[in-house]
Amino acid sequence: MKKRWMWFHDRFEPTEVHLHGFSDYIAGKETEYQRIEILQSPFFGKMLVIDGDVQSSERDEYIYHESLVHPALTILKKPENVLILGGGEGATLREILKHKTIKRVTMIDIDRESIEFAKKHLKEWHKGAFESEKLNLILGDALKIVNELKEGSFDAIISDVTEPFEGGPSYRLFTREFFEKLKRLLKKDGVFSLQASMLRNVTYELHRAIHWTLKEVFHLVFSYYSYVPSFDTTWGFCLASDELNPEDFSIEEIDRRIGERIEGELRFYDGETHKKLFLLPKDIREILKKKTNIIEEDKPFVLPKKNSL
Amino acid sequence: MKKRWMWFHDRFEPTEVHLHGFSDYIAGKETEYQRIEILQSPFFGKMLVIDGDVQSSERDEYIYHESLVHPALTILKKPENVLILGGGEGATLREILKHKTIKRVTMIDIDRESIEFAKKHLKEWHKGAFESEKLNLILGDALKIVNELKEGSFDAIISDVTEPFEGGPSYRLFTREFFEKLKRLLKKDGVFSLQASMLRNVTYELHRAIHWTLKEVFHLVFSYYSYVPSFDTTWGFCLASDELNPEDFSIEEIDRRIGERIEGELRFYDGETHKKLFLLPKDIREILKKKTNIIEEDKPFVLPKKNSL
Amino acid sequence: MKKRWMWFHDRFEPTEVHLHGFSDYIAGKETEYQRIEILQSPFFGKMLVIDGDVQSSERDEYIYHESLVHPALTILKKPENVLILGGGEGATLREILKHKTIKRVTMIDIDRESIEFAKKHLKEWHKGAFESEKLNLILGDALKIVNELKEGSFDAIISDVTEPFEGGPSYRLFTREFFEKLKRLLKKDGVFSLQASMLRNVTYELHRAIHWTLKEVFHLVFSYYSYVPSFDTTWGFCLASDELNPEDFSIEEIDRRIGERIEGELRFYDGETHKKLFLLPKDIREILKKKTNIIEEDKPFVLPKKNSL
Amino acid sequence: MKKRWMWFHDRFEPTEVHLHGFSDYIAGKETEYQRIEILQSPFFGKMLVIDGDVQSSERDEYIYHESLVHPALTILKKPENVLILGGGEGATLREILKHKTIKRVTMIDIDRESIEFAKKHLKEWHKGAFESEKLNLILGDALKIVNELKEGSFDAIISDVTEPFEGGPSYRLFTREFFEKLKRLLKKDGVFSLQASMLRNVTYELHRAIHWTLKEVFHLVFSYYSYVPSFDTTWGFCLASDELNPEDFSIEEIDRRIGERIEGELRFYDGETHKKLFLLPKDIREILKKKTNIIEEDKPFVLPKKNSL
Repeated sequence: MKKRWMWFHDRFEPTEVHLHGFSDYIAGKETEYQRIEILQSPFFGKMLVIDGDVQSSERDEYIYHESLVHPALTILKKPENVLILGGGEGATLREILKHKTIKRVTMIDIDRESIEFAKKHLKEWHKGAFESEKLNLILGDALKIVNELKEGSFDAIISDVTEPFEGGPSYRLFTREFFEKLKRLLKKDGVFSLQASMLRNVTYELHRAIHWTLKEVFHLVFSYYSYVPSFDTTWGFCLASDELNPEDFSIEEIDRRIGERIEGELRFYDGETHKKLFLLPKDIREILKKKTNIIEEDKPFVLPKKNSL
Repeated sequence: MKKRWMWFHDRFEPTEVHLHGFSDYIAGKETEYQRIEILQSPFFGKMLVIDGDVQSSERDEYIYHESLVHPALTILKKPENVLILGGGEGATLREILKHKTIKRVTMIDIDRESIEFAKKHLKEWHKGAFESEKLNLILGDALKIVNELKEGSFDAIISDVTEPFEGGPSYRLFTREFFEKLKRLLKKDGVFSLQASMLRNVTYELHRAIHWTLKEVFHLVFSYYSYVPSFDTTWGFCLASDELNPEDFSIEEIDRRIGERIEGELRFYDGETHKKLFLLPKDIREILKKKTNIIEEDKPFVLPKKNSL
Repeated sequence: MKKRWMWFHDRFEPTEVHLHGFSDYIAGKETEYQRIEILQSPFFGKMLVIDGDVQSSERDEYIYHESLVHPALTILKKPENVLILGGGEGATLREILKHKTIKRVTMIDIDRESIEFAKKHLKEWHKGAFESEKLNLILGDALKIVNELKEGSFDAIISDVTEPFEGGPSYRLFTREFFEKLKRLLKKDGVFSLQASMLRNVTYELHRAIHWTLKEVFHLVFSYYSYVPSFDTTWGFCLASDELNPEDFSIEEIDRRIGERIEGELRFYDGETHKKLFLLPKDIREILKKKTNIIEEDKPFVLPKKNSL
Repeated sequence: MKKRWMWFHDRFEPTEVHLHGFSDYIAGKETEYQRIEILQSPFFGKMLVIDGDVQSSERDEYIYHESLVHPALTILKKPENVLILGGGEGATLREILKHKTIKRVTMIDIDRESIEFAKKHLKEWHKGAFESEKLNLILGDALKIVNELKEGSFDAIISDVTEPFEGGPSYRLFTREFFEKLKRLLKKDGVFSLQASMLRNVTYELHRAIHWTLKEVFHLVFSYYSYVPSFDTTWGFCLASDELNPEDFSIEEIDRRIGERIEGELRFYDGETHKKLFLLPKDIREILKKKTNIIEEDKPFVLPKKNSL
């Protein structure tokens, strides 16, 4: 291997830091909202880092994006109209478009520069999805734009925004008030799924708060997680709905729907994966049982900025 | 938090290093076989490090040890006589002794000094289990001692040896020949379970080789994994048997058996956890399908020593 | 070399950190005043670390201690009675005792436990000097004890206290008021020399403030520095006196005095070294010229605590 | 300060690593000969890194370049014609051109791309010196080109090539044979000065070998060093000549020559600095006394490549 000496320090906790050596610093950009950097890691391939936080890596982004998108879309009878929040690298969009039933995807991202950056540097993620005629890309603040969208019109909403870092663009998108707005945009049997921060026995506070905040708004809320190697951790997601329960679906039914609807291939998600995702070990179930404060516009949950200096 | 400046560097890959800050270096010892160190981590509690490799931490060792022990013992009708290989910190023993049916546990560990060290410094692990009258502790090389044990006498064998590092004491305990010897020690419907290295989409070579080597010896072989935060990764286990299939057990049946047999409490394992463990995502199933070379006495699988210098 | 994985992180600046790998953690102790740790470094030998700050290493402590002690003692006609502040590892004492003229050394150290620790673990430093009959060791706070010592009685005072870290025991020993007290303890032609923090073109603030504070008290003040590898930097000292000027001494005169007075050997200091020390490059002279605020009891100069977490 | 998370790991020894956090990765380039990178360090300003080795930083390059150039040029009666080997960042050239007597500077650098890179990104170093009409820039391998230059024509030769890393472009420029060629290019009273690797009590092997190799070729050889903060160490230089001895010059004479000849300002070098440079402490003198093997074309001295992976 080429000898190299540049490292990205990903600090999770004051005393826990993961160092990723990189062979090339592919690109870096300070946009109005965030600092975006792309590294070439000998182990993980291209890595996308926003504000010092790994967003995804070439070798394992499929785990994250399939976990975020497919449980929600697959349990829907016929997903046609989907809203994405964030998801600037284009991989969430890419996964949604694999469902042949999809007619239109509306995507709201606050950061025009970051979308341009992704189009140019992250082809392995979006794979041309930004060119789809089904895409309606809106550049702006989701907080406001959701007010202008038609109520009751979406089969699914997928939130793929960055972590709610202090001073960042995302923390206001994890509140009860915002979730209520999203619910109004959904059809009656619509589904909301979102990336919901780390979920593991030693780190769960934010996830649990999101879980309980969603429960204020939706009848049915499910937490699940997938292990994403470049994150060092199992990553949490929530799926919320008033009517649909992912536990009701057999392995065979999920596999049947995938067979019918998916164009292209899924690498992570199928019937057995689905069944696994919606079973949780005892310790995590115990953690989630304990009710927390609800996240609200005037009581947001913010994470301290990433820092290794 | 107290300000601290001492760090343990855990290098997984040339370019992937996890740094654990520690507040106290509790104890260190160079035994005949290995270097053992115990650190006080502000995040993970006490950490046991052998030859630079995290063995377990106070905050998450229950996940590892319950995953290793309980699936095997719970699917047995009535586990009475169990053999442990390794497991020097005493937590595997501790979990086995929770099963009220157990009459005798034979434990073979090569490293007398490390057992003494564990008795003294790792009370949070063994919780006094070394005092059990059911324990038959044999200090010596499992490779030889298994030849002296009675064939067909064990309900379960649990292998909790260290990773097969180059020059270390464990690499000869992961071969076809050794697995065959173990099988002869088992009763006809006995079960063998073992820690079987990392299992994740980016690191699986050793696990897969163990999996296929076991298949040469046992009719039924199951891979499963649990995410252990202090390892940064999902950790693989194998359960092998000629007769018993863990997938045959319903959530309810597992929970019923736990209710009847377990003294004390399990934190990670129960019926739902069991069901989850024996479902695998698509990518991991694909990885495991590909047959590898068999690990044999004269073709061992060794890992390079851990090193961060 | 043995493979190792434990590291001490010495952070000088937010973005500048020196990592020292160590092969053994020899001892650690939390005394009433400070945290003391001794590491075995493959490169520097034993290293003494107090509150996260390298105090000295086996391979280069002679540079530091000879620089601190010998210029002051050698320019004295006949040093007999010396006061040490701090210097708990015993090496400053060791160097002073090499001067055959010495009759009595009074040493004040605040930390009884750290002295015991040094006696036991730092034989390479003190080399038995604590056993000298010339030693009068006083355990207590120099700030108070100097009030009880006889005025006009010392030929030299050598201050070897730790850096003035926030909340630590030393920051009150770098003030104008304290320097005035010390001056009263000196004979008319006595000399005061002290460790005076980093001195280099990129880090000089504390040294310069000490320099100018001394100038309020003594007629003659000289800054000098030696490069100490385990500190990564040139380290500053000051020599202050009302009458003696180290620049007045020729290489030959210094060598002659060493030849007459020193028992044992000096490794770093001699006539040529002396001459070199009291010449400074242009940039450092320019830095020192600029007058700063004076450090006073109610306006102390404190450094933030060392921290790498 | 902005929060940042990218670090350059500079490994000096297996267990000694300096980490430099950087806020921007300004540029990186893999040329035919080397990998060049420019970082923005919050502490050191711009840093130039070649093959993982710090070449110089904005805040302290003046110390290195003035130490390399001015002692040699100042002791010459009237330096007019100078040869530079390497020195691609243009700062050695910049310092030479400050001497008003200079008529022509010939500079040989092997790496066209790196010169282009420096012209564009290292204005703080060259400050336009590449535009001088006195410059004769030759792109090519010094090893060959020196054969084509006119013998006896140079007042001074300044070698500012990179460290002799294994496989790199420089190790053949530190041999007896090469030094002999250089000597033939010098006028009878000419001077050769060169960067000559680390010189400190714990690291001196390469410097000492250069020192003794030069002694095979020149009548007079002087080792000196300056502390360069971004290198973490005192850096060694050698000045060699058949006739001129830098120790013969008084502080006043050096200052007088600087006053007469220099256009612009020197920040580090003057008479007092000159005097200091050519005095060495006892330990370093002892180290240099011990004769080593001579570096020859077929017995080169190479350093292992820098690596932190």
